[in-house]
Amino acid sequence: MSGLFTIALDAMGGDHGPHVVVPAALKALAEFSDIHLILVGDKARLEKELAALGKAPSDRLRIHHAAQVVGMDEPPTQALRNKKDSSMRVAINLVKHQQADACVSAGNTGALMATARYVLKTLPGIDRPAIITAIPAIKGHTHMLDLGANVDCSASHLYQFAVMGSELASAVDNVSNPRVGLLNIGEEDIKGNDQVKEAAHMLEQSHLNYIGFVEGNDIYCGDVDVVVCDGFVGNVALKTSEGVARMVSHYMRAEFKRGLLSRLAALVAMPVLRKFRGRIDPRAYNGASLLGLQGVVIKSHGGADAVAFENAIRIARIEARKRVPQRIDKRLGELLNEESAS
Amino acid sequence: MSGLFTIALDAMGGDHGPHVVVPAALKALAEFSDIHLILVGDKARLEKELAALGKAPSDRLRIHHAAQVVGMDEPPTQALRNKKDSSMRVAINLVKHQQADACVSAGNTGALMATARYVLKTLPGIDRPAIITAIPAIKGHTHMLDLGANVDCSASHLYQFAVMGSELASAVDNVSNPRVGLLNIGEEDIKGNDQVKEAAHMLEQSHLNYIGFVEGNDIYCGDVDVVVCDGFVGNVALKTSEGVARMVSHYMRAEFKRGLLSRLAALVAMPVLRKFRGRIDPRAYNGASLLGLQGVVIKSHGGADAVAFENAIRIARIEARKRVPQRIDKRLGELLNEESAS
Repeated sequence: MSGLFTIALDAMGGDHGPHVVVPAALKALAEFSDIHLILVGDKARLEKELAALGKAPSDRLRIHHAAQVVGMDEPPTQALRNKKDSSMRVAINLVKHQQADACVSAGNTGALMATARYVLKTLPGIDRPAIITAIPAIKGHTHMLDLGANVDCSASHLYQFAVMGSELASAVDNVSNPRVGLLNIGEEDIKGNDQVKEAAHMLEQSHLNYIGFVEGNDIYCGDVDVVVCDGFVGNVALKTSEGVARMVSHYMRAEFKRGLLSRLAALVAMPVLRKFRGRIDPRAYNGASLLGLQGVVIKSHGGADAVAFENAIRIARIEARKRVPQRIDKRLGELLNEESAS
Repeated sequence: MSGLFTIALDAMGGDHGPHVVVPAALKALAEFSDIHLILVGDKARLEKELAALGKAPSDRLRIHHAAQVVGMDEPPTQALRNKKDSSMRVAINLVKHQQADACVSAGNTGALMATARYVLKTLPGIDRPAIITAIPAIKGHTHMLDLGANVDCSASHLYQFAVMGSELASAVDNVSNPRVGLLNIGEEDIKGNDQVKEAAHMLEQSHLNYIGFVEGNDIYCGDVDVVVCDGFVGNVALKTSEGVARMVSHYMRAEFKRGLLSRLAALVAMPVLRKFRGRIDPRAYNGASLLGLQGVVIKSHGGADAVAFENAIRIARIEARKRVPQRIDKRLGELLNEESAS
C-alpha cells in the first residue's frame, strides 16, 4: 500500500491531447507526492508543451516517445492493426512490461478497450472486461458497470461484473461488503429479461452482499454501492443522466436571466448556485476503469479539461495503490475454488 | 375533430383512488367544456367523495359502478382472471363498447396493459403495444417509447414502435414529419446490438423521417421528436432521469439551507426557483399512452396527485380528439399495402 506509483499517460489522446494532458500531469504531480508520471506521445510536441508552461522533463515526469496517434473515430480493429506505435498502445505496453502501475487515456473507448484487452489480457475467469465509474448520489456515490463495453450480456457476464464491481468498491471506498444491486425495470421478481432474472439467481447464491433488484432512480439514492447492468443499458442510463443535468442547468440559467429582478436574485444566489454546481460537476467524477484486465487502465472523457483529466489520474493512482486487478484475481480464484469444492 | 368526448376514469386505481381521481375529474370538467367523464368504481364511495366536495353526479359526470379493485401489486394474470368487475376492467370495457372515447387509470401498469390488450386487442400489424410518454426537453418535448411494456424487442417491434410514435407525435404536436431517432450507445453504425442495427436498416428504408441513432443525452435536447427503444432500456432511462432530478433538487435545497446567508439568498431567489421547478415539474408530464391498441388507454402515475391526474385526462382528451388509434391503423394499412405492392 506504500511506495511510489508510476502512471503512464496517453498524452495525445482525447479532443485536446497534450494541451490538456500536460497541465493535468503537472497538477497531479504537485498534489500527489507518491506518483511518477510518463507522458507518452510525440516527444518534440510534449517538450514544447512543457516549455510553454515553464517546465522540463524530470525524474518524476518523463517523456516516452510514440510516433502515432489513434484517431477519436478510428475503428478499434484498425487501431489494433495499424497503430502499434500509438501513444495509447505504448502507454498500455508500459503497464504490461511493469514499467508503469497504471495508464490513463482520453482516446476513443472502443480502441482503448480493444488494445488493452489484446495487450494486457483479461484475468482468468473473466470473459469480458467492463467499464465502471463512480456516479454522485444523494449519499456518497454509486459504482456502476458495465457502461458500454458489452452490448449483449449473459447472466454469467452480469455475475462477473458484480464480482469485479464489488471488489473495486471495497478497495477504493474501504468498505468490507459493498451492497450490490442488479438494475431492472421493477423490484418484483416477475419483471425483467431472462438474463437479469438468471443473474439474480446466481447472485442470491453467491457470497456477495447482493441486495436484489434496483431501478434507475436508485442509482442516485446512495442506498446501493454497486449497480450491475449490461453495457447498452448502462451507457443509456449514464448519457441520459448527462442530458437531464444539462437541461436542468439550462432551465436554471434561463430563469435567472429572465428580467432584472431575476438577475439580481441570481447575483445574491450566486455563491450558493456555484456550490451547488460543484456538487454535480461531472469533472469531479471523470475517469472510468476498464475492469477485468491484468492491469489498471483508466479512460478519461474525450472532452475532459485539465481538472477532469487530473481526476482520472487520481483514480489511476488509487487503483494502483489498492492493487485492484490483483484483488479481483484473488477473489475470482476463491470463487472458482468454492465452486470446485462444492 | 369537433364534438364531445367521453372519458372513462378508473376512479379506484392508483395509490390514492377516488381521493385524487374525483377532484381531478372536477378540475378537468371545469377546464375542458368538450368532455364528459365517467367515474368507474364503488358507487357509494364515489358519491360520498363528490358530496364532500359539494358536488353530485351530473350529465357531464356520471358514476358507473364497479365492485372490484385491482391491487397495485396484483399480478396481471390474476387481475385478468379474477377481477372481471374491477374499476380498471370496466373502464376499458366502456371504451370497447364505444360508450367512452378513452380511459385513464392510475392502476398497476402490468394489469392495465394485460387487461387493455385482452379487451381491446392490438391493431392489425402490431405485435405488441408499447408505452409512450412526452418528456420535457430543452426545446419543447420528446416522445419516447417503449417505456417498459416489452423487455425483449426484435427489430420489427422497434420498427412498429417507430411507426406508432411518429403518428402519435404528428397528431398531438401537429407536425407533419416528426423526427424519429433510434436510441443507441453511439452514433456510429458499428455500435449497438443486433436488433437496433437491423431496426435502423428497416427505418432507413421506410417513409418515416428517420434521423438515425440518438444517445441518452439527446432525449433532452429537443432535436428529435420520437425516441424509439426497447422497454427495458426506456424504463431505465426514465427512472434514471427521475433519480437525477431528485438528486439535483436535494442538493439545491441542501445548499440553500446551509447557513443564514444562503437562507436569505433562497428567499430572494425563491420566485425564480419556483418557476424553475415548474419547468421540470413531472406532474405536467404525467400520463403515458398505451399505444397500438384499438382504443385510447392512458396510464397515470400511481402516486399522481389531482394536478397530475388531470394532466392524464388532458392527454386522453387530445388522443381521443385526434383519433390516434385510427390514425395509426390507417398508416399501418398504407405500409402493408406498400409492402405487398413492392
